[in-house]
Amino acid sequence: MTSRTSLNARTLERRYYTGDDVYARETEHIFFDRWLFAGRASQVKTPGSYMLFEVESESIIILRAHDGTLHAHHNVCRHRGTRLVTQPTGTFGKSIQCGYHAWTYALDGRLTGAPFMDEVESFCKENYPLLSVELAEWEGCIFVNLSGAPEPFEQAFAPLIDKFDRWGLAELQIAHRIEYELSANWKLVFQNYSECYHCPALHPTLNKLTPFRNAWNDLEEGPFLGGPMRMSIEGGSMTMSGQRCAAPLGRLDGEDLNLVQYYTVFPNLLLSLHPDYVLIHRIDRLATDRTRIVCDWLFHPDEMAGPDFDPEPAIKFWNMTNEQDWMVSELSQAGISSRAYTPGPYAELESMIAAWDREYLRSLDPEPGD
Amino acid sequence: MTSRTSLNARTLERRYYTGDDVYARETEHIFFDRWLFAGRASQVKTPGSYMLFEVESESIIILRAHDGTLHAHHNVCRHRGTRLVTQPTGTFGKSIQCGYHAWTYALDGRLTGAPFMDEVESFCKENYPLLSVELAEWEGCIFVNLSGAPEPFEQAFAPLIDKFDRWGLAELQIAHRIEYELSANWKLVFQNYSECYHCPALHPTLNKLTPFRNAWNDLEEGPFLGGPMRMSIEGGSMTMSGQRCAAPLGRLDGEDLNLVQYYTVFPNLLLSLHPDYVLIHRIDRLATDRTRIVCDWLFHPDEMAGPDFDPEPAIKFWNMTNEQDWMVSELSQAGISSRAYTPGPYAELESMIAAWDREYLRSLDPEPGD
Amino acid sequence: MTSRTSLNARTLERRYYTGDDVYARETEHIFFDRWLFAGRASQVKTPGSYMLFEVESESIIILRAHDGTLHAHHNVCRHRGTRLVTQPTGTFGKSIQCGYHAWTYALDGRLTGAPFMDEVESFCKENYPLLSVELAEWEGCIFVNLSGAPEPFEQAFAPLIDKFDRWGLAELQIAHRIEYELSANWKLVFQNYSECYHCPALHPTLNKLTPFRNAWNDLEEGPFLGGPMRMSIEGGSMTMSGQRCAAPLGRLDGEDLNLVQYYTVFPNLLLSLHPDYVLIHRIDRLATDRTRIVCDWLFHPDEMAGPDFDPEPAIKFWNMTNEQDWMVSELSQAGISSRAYTPGPYAELESMIAAWDREYLRSLDPEPGD
Repeated sequence: MTSRTSLNARTLERRYYTGDDVYARETEHIFFDRWLFAGRASQVKTPGSYMLFEVESESIIILRAHDGTLHAHHNVCRHRGTRLVTQPTGTFGKSIQCGYHAWTYALDGRLTGAPFMDEVESFCKENYPLLSVELAEWEGCIFVNLSGAPEPFEQAFAPLIDKFDRWGLAELQIAHRIEYELSANWKLVFQNYSECYHCPALHPTLNKLTPFRNAWNDLEEGPFLGGPMRMSIEGGSMTMSGQRCAAPLGRLDGEDLNLVQYYTVFPNLLLSLHPDYVLIHRIDRLATDRTRIVCDWLFHPDEMAGPDFDPEPAIKFWNMTNEQDWMVSELSQAGISSRAYTPGPYAELESMIAAWDREYLRSLDPEPGD
Repeated sequence: MTSRTSLNARTLERRYYTGDDVYARETEHIFFDRWLFAGRASQVKTPGSYMLFEVESESIIILRAHDGTLHAHHNVCRHRGTRLVTQPTGTFGKSIQCGYHAWTYALDGRLTGAPFMDEVESFCKENYPLLSVELAEWEGCIFVNLSGAPEPFEQAFAPLIDKFDRWGLAELQIAHRIEYELSANWKLVFQNYSECYHCPALHPTLNKLTPFRNAWNDLEEGPFLGGPMRMSIEGGSMTMSGQRCAAPLGRLDGEDLNLVQYYTVFPNLLLSLHPDYVLIHRIDRLATDRTRIVCDWLFHPDEMAGPDFDPEPAIKFWNMTNEQDWMVSELSQAGISSRAYTPGPYAELESMIAAWDREYLRSLDPEPGD
Repeated sequence: MTSRTSLNARTLERRYYTGDDVYARETEHIFFDRWLFAGRASQVKTPGSYMLFEVESESIIILRAHDGTLHAHHNVCRHRGTRLVTQPTGTFGKSIQCGYHAWTYALDGRLTGAPFMDEVESFCKENYPLLSVELAEWEGCIFVNLSGAPEPFEQAFAPLIDKFDRWGLAELQIAHRIEYELSANWKLVFQNYSECYHCPALHPTLNKLTPFRNAWNDLEEGPFLGGPMRMSIEGGSMTMSGQRCAAPLGRLDGEDLNLVQYYTVFPNLLLSLHPDYVLIHRIDRLATDRTRIVCDWLFHPDEMAGPDFDPEPAIKFWNMTNEQDWMVSELSQAGISSRAYTPGPYAELESMIAAWDREYLRSLDPEPGD
């Protein structure tokens, strides 16, 4: 954070947090354009299993076909538009059948049955597969893209592709999940995560484990931002006691065992890599002033199978920290909604917010001047 | 349904189910223009009794005056605009008095008392009667029209006027009422009612009593659509057992005793005539994605007075069927709201939906090109 | 009310009670322009104490500094816009500190601490005080003005400044508070308060104590309207029994002891002066069809300290009357929302509503023709 990238930068104007027009542009240029984190591949491990991922008015069925491949389809029957499934997770047999008129689809999306439609002369089953969306898997994370013509995932995520190899992320499983909902714009959650200037006042427990000046960034511009913080306890972790609650992940050793790594992944993922576990926050924008956060604690399955496995110190620590952060994010949303609010000055300690804001503004207005 | 009237017809575009502009046009061109079913004359049988009928921001008092005539007035005092009554049903004495400043109206709407208004020089009671709306009675059903200059009822309803004479509908009374509310556009309820293509998958019990192919239509274009289905049990009815739960209605005999008759009455009534009872659904549009349905089971009063009268088999049958239909209508609303939805192809078995859609579109845009 | 100021006046059109455009113009030209009653100075008596006053999206901290002066600040940190306090009342020590990054302000609004902001070259604490709003105190009532350039309070309130001297209003304290919320436009509350034409039908108890014809007005045009009513019981008051429940206020004697005085103070205060207590209603506009009312019963502190002090007869009387008034206001809102509503004729007894409406319309459109 010595690069002074925040030079004279200021917070965004009010309309970015309250305006319906900005919200609509975000929908088009960000949420229906960028790769979105949907969930973990371990959530759809067995053949036939699916999970729903919802964004705005869209419901996406993410499933594993019987050949082991992952697919993502719009949850919309091609006949009368009926939702095919409503439970957030479940398992299909050989096919997906609409409950209304029994139109039937293969798991890869092909329409295989449409009763009595042979009476309609022009009808041809090949024309009515489920509408699919692009899907990519990286480190056990599933991403989808609703744009219809996405930038290739490998190109979009090039700066991250091999960056976390030594954590063995792909193998990890969800040990615990907490869902939160808060009355604040989704961007306030990213901005809050992007600085530790607030840690002394808001997070005294966290600030003891990682004093807020112990930070630097190795990704400082673009859709992926962040870097490590050095812990005050050697070989420790971010837990209530400051001690690890599981063996080190993957191939971690040396200095990695003294660091925690924090990255924002635009536009809907926070990635917090600890020596012994990984925390992921999926940020679901719900309204200008409403956000859902799905927070997963990931551990190695061997650890989870152990008789003494106890993730509670990590869960309790981050649940406490999360709630502190959501509380100030709500206070910020309320204050920013005032006519009295004017953009304020960022501190040098907030340089990563300034970088995040720049990426956000570039995304919102991909061709300046339009 | 052999007329192939659905040739290459497709479901309506998304905006008809979600758009505020379409909603506003429906208000003008349909709900404030067409004759609307309000309720049964038997609900306001005794002199002085009234019921409220509400549509959008309007509250209409439908009452029976002491001379036995029916009247419909806006529930708005002409002084300061105050609602005169709030209870959905009740009984007036000789007059209707506003609780605010005691302005008093005769049941035919004339202003008969306005305290101290003689101090206002230009004031003249004759200028401030309750604003009335047109009312018509047909087969014991009360219809109102809010347009101010309606098409004469007899002309608008010509195709139905004598059609159901032999059921003796006018004499029937409400044995049971259930109100439903669902998260779906009102048109999905009409479209669902207009075909039995969904019966095998959604209504196995109903489909045994009336196999879905046992249907034909005798009204195939315009505001009134539908026709009979032949029951698989001779002399049966649509009940849990398939047996009648009351004596045949009116002058029914012969083939009528083996049929159930289903008609959509544009824009807010479904009429289901069984040999032994009549089911009416009043469809109240509440929002683009919200509909209330008031469902009445009508029987002959002589049957209702009998010691063994038990409408439960009919109530239970249709309540079960209703709930199945509302459930898929909600799933359709959710799916149609997706950007991924595109109009799908109607089956031949859905020809009456195609006809209903045509009538709807004609109503919405009475002068093509405007 | 003999001045016939209501000559041929009519109620306002529907859009003033339901229209979003009117609501927005009220925000600009009335609520963000006029002096608003916020609360009583006795609510922030001790040094450091504060109360919040909220209007639309604005939250104002009204506090008493340690030198005894009153201040009003926007509840918005100048750094990231965060709300500084959330509790409706409380006490500050020497400063106000933001809980997010510990920016610290003196009670007069100066920024006194901004950790690490010395690292930002251009930053200067003097540029980031809390944004203040104008404040005035009159008869123990605190008024604020959000316009930035208000008409001087003494000029705006000239007709009232000395008018109520003999009641000793400044000394009174809140003995009881009731908050109400109703589904009606805020203007209906003012209009209801501005006439007693409705008293015989709606308030039989009140009408016995002050027969509705016992009224005259001494302020008949402009932002302050109203006048006295003579009570039917000499030396009585507006209570359940009609008897005073405390000694006469201030320097009241003679005819004042037989009168109750009712004034509307545009745009958010009703002032009801009784011989023994004062009732204030603060009218908070919440939406076109939603209003909050904060009603305080004020008594002299010497009376409140007495062993036999019992304000219940006054509280019960006005709580009953309030609820009757809110009920008819809700009925009026519902009826006025109908398309069938058209402006109705005011009675002579409603001349003060006509005057209030004129002031309202002048406020809404300060330069006719714009």
